[in-house]
Amino acid sequence: MNNNELKYIQSFAHKKHWDQESVFIVEGPKLLQEVMQSDWVIEKIFATKEWLDAQTVLNAPHELIDDILLGRMSQLKQPNQVLALVHKKHDASPLALQGQFTLVLDGIQDPGNVGTIIRTADWFGIKQIIVSADSAQLYNPKVLQSTMGSFLRVKVQVQNLEETLSNHLFPVYGALLNGRSVFETKMDKEGLLVIGNESKGIRQNIMPFIKHPITIPNFGAAESLNAAVATGIILASQK
Amino acid sequence: MNNNELKYIQSFAHKKHWDQESVFIVEGPKLLQEVMQSDWVIEKIFATKEWLDAQTVLNAPHELIDDILLGRMSQLKQPNQVLALVHKKHDASPLALQGQFTLVLDGIQDPGNVGTIIRTADWFGIKQIIVSADSAQLYNPKVLQSTMGSFLRVKVQVQNLEETLSNHLFPVYGALLNGRSVFETKMDKEGLLVIGNESKGIRQNIMPFIKHPITIPNFGAAESLNAAVATGIILASQK
Repeated sequence: MNNNELKYIQSFAHKKHWDQESVFIVEGPKLLQEVMQSDWVIEKIFATKEWLDAQTVLNAPHELIDDILLGRMSQLKQPNQVLALVHKKHDASPLALQGQFTLVLDGIQDPGNVGTIIRTADWFGIKQIIVSADSAQLYNPKVLQSTMGSFLRVKVQVQNLEETLSNHLFPVYGALLNGRSVFETKMDKEGLLVIGNESKGIRQNIMPFIKHPITIPNFGAAESLNAAVATGIILASQK
Repeated sequence: MNNNELKYIQSFAHKKHWDQESVFIVEGPKLLQEVMQSDWVIEKIFATKEWLDAQTVLNAPHELIDDILLGRMSQLKQPNQVLALVHKKHDASPLALQGQFTLVLDGIQDPGNVGTIIRTADWFGIKQIIVSADSAQLYNPKVLQSTMGSFLRVKVQVQNLEETLSNHLFPVYGALLNGRSVFETKMDKEGLLVIGNESKGIRQNIMPFIKHPITIPNFGAAESLNAAVATGIILASQK
């Protein structure tokens, strides 16, 4: 590894860069193993001897580095054996809504919330999420990290929500402060569930598409729930 | 306001300081209004003319400042009209477990998770939370902020969990990966619910006290749920 490669990898800590590149960074043995078992394509692995020695099969391009160099490349507080460049996925066509329950994120801006929603969706078997362009984006390192590996299994696609929501025949549910209790609602397995911005909720231009407002009944005094917590409660209420 | 006062307020951004002081900082008109309507004691309010002019009654000590000074005092990205020093609350005695459902946090270290759990508890009418000494602490500014004001209504007390859990007669539930489904469990209204560390779960020394292991069934492939999401789902499952 030369100095330019090191600088290149370090540059992923900055938004402009991770947003523009065709690859992203994955770190740590556990997540790397999940990537290797998935259909995601690894461009290159940088790993310590400890990690390389533990591999029985290793088809991806790889390079031996030491802990000091790993520490300089890593974005983790505790760098852990291995770091890899993985190719982003680009869907050629919009996600099909048929036969799927789809989450729709309208301006969820906190990367931790978006990542946690992806992880929660994965727990409940939801396979796809549509996000507005102003939501925190999948390849934001903080989003990736919060998914705890679930980004490998849940498709996340940026779409114009107004277009998406006006061109299909499935029921659209929306998490609102006023609506039918989720505990008394059975959502359609082919439906869409819109989750709104952390402080502003679902936007006015999206509201006309919400044919089924649902709500989590409030038994205390908090004014709202965290977006990821609300998503988890709504998905759990359907099981 | 003199330069020493400014430096004092700025110092709250550092852990050592907010941990040691008898007061903490609250910012913004909405939260200030909630504090003024609560039984928490305000030491001093620093506010812009805009905020002061909007008050009909103002019994707390206060000082007029301009936006530039507010910007220098504030820990927010977008300082908002008012900042106040509020006295911390110290409970003279341990929280009573009788007649209450109590959350117990065993080493929840992410401040956002602890704050979101407090907010979620408040939504579901839970009035008290016991936290281990190594959990993120209430007066950590990131915890306070994540509660969205719920810290005013939910009591949070640090206790030695082993002592607490060995000295009472109420059922102890624990959120685990293996246990009875929360959807098939009716928790006692006078029970305790232990939530474990984000990556390690409930610690070994606490496990003997968990008489009722409960779990959120997994319908997908994620290995775990975020601690705050799990708490929300469990509390919602009882409604």
